Amino acid sequence: MRIDGRSAEQLRDVEIKTQFTKHPEGSVLITVGETKVICNASVEERVPPFMRGQNKGWITAEYAMLPRATEQRNIRESSKGKASGRTMEIQRLIGRALRAVIDLDEIGERTIWVDCDVIQADGGTRTASITGAFVAVALACRKLLDEEKITKLPIKHFIAATSVGVSKDGETILDLCYEEDSTAEVDMNIVMTDENEFVELQGTGEEATFSPSQLNDMIQLSQKGIQELFDYQRQAIGDTASLISEAKGE
Amino acid sequence: MRIDGRSAEQLRDVEIKTQFTKHPEGSVLITVGETKVICNASVEERVPPFMRGQNKGWITAEYAMLPRATEQRNIRESSKGKASGRTMEIQRLIGRALRAVIDLDEIGERTIWVDCDVIQADGGTRTASITGAFVAVALACRKLLDEEKITKLPIKHFIAATSVGVSKDGETILDLCYEEDSTAEVDMNIVMTDENEFVELQGTGEEATFSPSQLNDMIQLSQKGIQELFDYQRQAIGDTASLISEAKGE
Amino acid sequence: MRIDGRSAEQLRDVEIKTQFTKHPEGSVLITVGETKVICNASVEERVPPFMRGQNKGWITAEYAMLPRATEQRNIRESSKGKASGRTMEIQRLIGRALRAVIDLDEIGERTIWVDCDVIQADGGTRTASITGAFVAVALACRKLLDEEKITKLPIKHFIAATSVGVSKDGETILDLCYEEDSTAEVDMNIVMTDENEFVELQGTGEEATFSPSQLNDMIQLSQKGIQELFDYQRQAIGDTASLISEAKGE
Amino acid sequence: MRIDGRSAEQLRDVEIKTQFTKHPEGSVLITVGETKVICNASVEERVPPFMRGQNKGWITAEYAMLPRATEQRNIRESSKGKASGRTMEIQRLIGRALRAVIDLDEIGERTIWVDCDVIQADGGTRTASITGAFVAVALACRKLLDEEKITKLPIKHFIAATSVGVSKDGETILDLCYEEDSTAEVDMNIVMTDENEFVELQGTGEEATFSPSQLNDMIQLSQKGIQELFDYQRQAIGDTASLISEAKGE
Amino acid sequence: MRIDGRSAEQLRDVEIKTQFTKHPEGSVLITVGETKVICNASVEERVPPFMRGQNKGWITAEYAMLPRATEQRNIRESSKGKASGRTMEIQRLIGRALRAVIDLDEIGERTIWVDCDVIQADGGTRTASITGAFVAVALACRKLLDEEKITKLPIKHFIAATSVGVSKDGETILDLCYEEDSTAEVDMNIVMTDENEFVELQGTGEEATFSPSQLNDMIQLSQKGIQELFDYQRQAIGDTASLISEAKGE
Amino acid sequence: MRIDGRSAEQLRDVEIKTQFTKHPEGSVLITVGETKVICNASVEERVPPFMRGQNKGWITAEYAMLPRATEQRNIRESSKGKASGRTMEIQRLIGRALRAVIDLDEIGERTIWVDCDVIQADGGTRTASITGAFVAVALACRKLLDEEKITKLPIKHFIAATSVGVSKDGETILDLCYEEDSTAEVDMNIVMTDENEFVELQGTGEEATFSPSQLNDMIQLSQKGIQELFDYQRQAIGDTASLISEAKGE
Repeated sequence: MRIDGRSAEQLRDVEIKTQFTKHPEGSVLITVGETKVICNASVEERVPPFMRGQNKGWITAEYAMLPRATEQRNIRESSKGKASGRTMEIQRLIGRALRAVIDLDEIGERTIWVDCDVIQADGGTRTASITGAFVAVALACRKLLDEEKITKLPIKHFIAATSVGVSKDGETILDLCYEEDSTAEVDMNIVMTDENEFVELQGTGEEATFSPSQLNDMIQLSQKGIQELFDYQRQAIGDTASLISEAKGE
Repeated sequence: MRIDGRSAEQLRDVEIKTQFTKHPEGSVLITVGETKVICNASVEERVPPFMRGQNKGWITAEYAMLPRATEQRNIRESSKGKASGRTMEIQRLIGRALRAVIDLDEIGERTIWVDCDVIQADGGTRTASITGAFVAVALACRKLLDEEKITKLPIKHFIAATSVGVSKDGETILDLCYEEDSTAEVDMNIVMTDENEFVELQGTGEEATFSPSQLNDMIQLSQKGIQELFDYQRQAIGDTASLISEAKGE
Repeated sequence: MRIDGRSAEQLRDVEIKTQFTKHPEGSVLITVGETKVICNASVEERVPPFMRGQNKGWITAEYAMLPRATEQRNIRESSKGKASGRTMEIQRLIGRALRAVIDLDEIGERTIWVDCDVIQADGGTRTASITGAFVAVALACRKLLDEEKITKLPIKHFIAATSVGVSKDGETILDLCYEEDSTAEVDMNIVMTDENEFVELQGTGEEATFSPSQLNDMIQLSQKGIQELFDYQRQAIGDTASLISEAKGE
Repeated sequence: MRIDGRSAEQLRDVEIKTQFTKHPEGSVLITVGETKVICNASVEERVPPFMRGQNKGWITAEYAMLPRATEQRNIRESSKGKASGRTMEIQRLIGRALRAVIDLDEIGERTIWVDCDVIQADGGTRTASITGAFVAVALACRKLLDEEKITKLPIKHFIAATSVGVSKDGETILDLCYEEDSTAEVDMNIVMTDENEFVELQGTGEEATFSPSQLNDMIQLSQKGIQELFDYQRQAIGDTASLISEAKGE
Repeated sequence: MRIDGRSAEQLRDVEIKTQFTKHPEGSVLITVGETKVICNASVEERVPPFMRGQNKGWITAEYAMLPRATEQRNIRESSKGKASGRTMEIQRLIGRALRAVIDLDEIGERTIWVDCDVIQADGGTRTASITGAFVAVALACRKLLDEEKITKLPIKHFIAATSVGVSKDGETILDLCYEEDSTAEVDMNIVMTDENEFVELQGTGEEATFSPSQLNDMIQLSQKGIQELFDYQRQAIGDTASLISEAKGE
Repeated sequence: MRIDGRSAEQLRDVEIKTQFTKHPEGSVLITVGETKVICNASVEERVPPFMRGQNKGWITAEYAMLPRATEQRNIRESSKGKASGRTMEIQRLIGRALRAVIDLDEIGERTIWVDCDVIQADGGTRTASITGAFVAVALACRKLLDEEKITKLPIKHFIAATSVGVSKDGETILDLCYEEDSTAEVDMNIVMTDENEFVELQGTGEEATFSPSQLNDMIQLSQKGIQELFDYQRQAIGDTASLISEAKGE
């Protein structure tokens, strides 16, 4: 049994609250266990210089934590004058994952900015960010559709993400909380589509290694967890889910 | 009648939610109309270098907005590599206001970090931050007291803040929302104690001026509004309010 | 009697020297007691991006101190890589104050840059900067008029500024020098027009508070002091003063 | 057949030149096809602050490219004032990979700095950096051993890295050159030990996804390629290879 | 005849005003033609980390221009976030020149900070800075001597500096003003001691070259000019000049 | 006899390897004794903003050292966030020297970027950079000529550079290695054309001075050394040397 009483293959409680703040085109508060992330999608009516004139759009993500999202207060990145390597790595991951499933040709010369701001952290902030960001982007796209700025939803697949790992006791576990994560031998973050394809897969042994069979176990466990996340997402976006299916020709 | 149906001397709806996130010693979500600010107080068991060895504490504040707290998305200050002048001005104001009423000699060689993060902005974010930050600091001090790290609450007075202004129609109005603020001729922020003393008073005419009698009107109006805010604060901190009275020898 | 022998309501000696350096359109050295500030106004024949195409001008201010303007040498802000919060706060104040009385519609698509560089500091550098900067701007505008780039002086009012405070002995005093300022309970900076209206008013109790009646005393004292400053300004700008009256239709 | 005439499962030509420059404790020039990286390992006789007093060492990596290592000249990161997200991501990867196989307890309170500077880039710079960095670190450790600063080689396993991908024609290919990489549907970087365990595995579909069976194919292909890299490494470090075996108790 | 009516071998008018501001240990305003530089020497009772424990002192220089010291306003270096290459080059030159003639062993574990702030520029700001800085440092050392912090003046030689050049008409000219400098074929800055030795010599042909015989002419012309500068310096420091001679055993 | 067995007037061994990396238009590895610098010339088909529309080109240089090019590892300038004063001084020198001999009118609206990256340092890195950079630029110009983008080589003269100094024993020596340089009394860098004219001359006495006759000795010694460097350059560029002579009308 795990620290928080879960079984090895059990996700933490998930809640996805939409319309969390009023200004963004899509605004979500995602809660995964004790991890809480505000995911806002903002539509800007232009693209960055390197994309101009191509008649297609762009999606980019930024990630940050409130200074006291964690047990110890962290120095604000605006005070340090730059984002840390960890922050950059995470925001690049979120952006890539979303670009893999959004049809940039369909959103026109627009940028969707995704801001993932962690207000409370207990492990898995990057995967919760991706899962929540997908919902925020879907809602922002729905708004573009309702305003007739686009003619169909530019969403090729759902994506969601979770972590899996090998605990210090050698057990393969799903959706690690902070305490588990900080003692795990192996930590893997997996982003998948609702058609069971990988978008991104990052496995790391910090001061440890893992075998092909452990890799296999972790992948299978994550697939199970991610399927559950799609249900939470579908519920959060309501009838937008069926518009996505339609757009996919299902 | 005002844009949002209020009378000239009416505050917006106020809500002060405590224990908003789990890590900080004091954590508050303050809502003033459509403005929402997370105010977290974190206790660090040391003081900055310039305060060392004086057997007293320090309070400092940081202020930021989520990129999409506003109608238009703002560039993240960590991306720009530095805090803007506006941010610096506000965080210096919050810090000064709190230091005016907290007895630094009583908190020992500790720093209280106050983080005010605006998640939704509709005018008055700096005054909401001060009103909310006071509650967060009071709760953090209470925690120190309960843990017997200090022997009495180091709080000399309650403080709260609001804005007043002269509208473009020449009317003196209380607690301006964003739309009022952006067209007002004069804008004044006032921080007061529960003993009706000023802590800070900043009146500005951007491309306009104001007369001594207008100043007088604004001050009277603000006093009324701030008294109401003390009630919300008292309610939020519960029996900590009576411990403050005790510590003041009331 | 005060440290330097003045009475409570007495300004320090003031001198405003024009044409201090040769390149700027308006160049002033203002001396207030032992405080000396070079105030240069530079005219640039364009406006910042956010003002373009509006057929009006812009005024902005920068403020700095020579490293050894003070008793202890300060690190140069270009070495630190950024302006401090204090510097930003002051330069925003100077800019706002000037924009309140200069008719931006009348100066055409031009920027007036005001540089206030403190070469010797003994308290009141921000108020001396404003008082000197007004003269520098008036002279720069006069130059534009003489060169027939504008058709009338774009100056709606004179402005000048001073400080008032409550000393540690509880006395209300005018125009604090550094030693007085560093021990004062309350410090207030006031910017007024020659028609006795406020442009900006900033009162602060660092680790102290002040009552409405103290506020009243400070305001009255400052009005008296500022009236004297207008005389020094009028003398410095010579017949430009009467052109300002004319432009105002007096 | 591939652009450069290789078969799908063929590595490019590899050369590992040791003692490339004279100052570093370990200095390597690794060539993989047209990609050339200088990998220098420097020993510093202290650890970073967060590691002090723990009687163990630290390994950290930095990565950069000469401005004209690429087809188009890039702006120097020292001119931009900061490392890019891509640079940070890569140097964090190199550092983590090395720390997974070096016994930090055995190197004493020392830091090994690994500098990977790409002088010519043609795809796979991060994996070439890891493969070369391992050799540089092994040589630096050997030097510590020869100088009797440590008593046995602190190397738990060999590591090497390569890339695999799915080409735009759907073929699984090993060790992508730049042109292949820029058109591939999926790109995966894999770091493995000589005992066939994973250290790090990062698979990414930029605007594409991949199936579990494609993942499987890529992993098998990479294992084959990495085994060959160990031979180049063994040859480069000479009799240090047998000292590593000894230390491992083989 | 030159632009300003001087002969080829004539210096501009020089004035060295001491005690220009009140806080620095040595404070000078040097005027060379229309170039005006404030040179302040500040004594700090400690040395930088790399000098600690050696029982000797350090001298370092910083150089800046007010934004409107020049015909066109320059962006403030604190706004740009860093000193330009030109600024760095000049302040390194001033520091090296002073360290060549000050006996660092004699000043104890102290740093002398030299701040050269150009308030009006018309060519030759770096050489005027050196000439003025020497006087400021001499006065600061005299103050240390008077306060009995040191036992003799730590000054080995006087230094002064000027520029020479080859005009666009091929004439060798002394002490170039801005207009001459900007059209000159060759520009040379020379720092010499009062014993006719070189401290620093920097000759540059921007888009031009110069012959050994032109070099010779320039050197001779500069020697003549620099001798005159020593007279201005001697006059400025009064009886400190004879204390320097004494210390040198003359 | 010197540390490394050379006579006072002897250069170290020089090697200039062309086509060192494949992407740059001109790519050189220059070796002078133990100093090794990669000099890459990159042609960009546009000029910086301040040069636009003048129908002429621009040359600019950047200089850096690998962190472990030196005995002690240096912090990477991209980590420090800015180039040091030394770096800026050197890259300005390289750029000026090249601009003195390249006919900017002849290269069209193009920028030639010269990157000098020191991979191993043993004194004289800036002079080796200039000598190698000339070759890289000549080869890049040759490429432009071969591609018929220009009609004749825009090279007015060859330039090369070396250092001379006065050793601690008072001997004038040519081409100082690091150990000599760090103990020398005087250090001078000289850039000359193949017509025996000076382009740049920088002599410095750090905590020492030098006489006119020592200057004379150093200049004569440097002329001899630089002549030898021209031979290495001619050999490196092959028949481009005769095209330069032709273009000069020789």
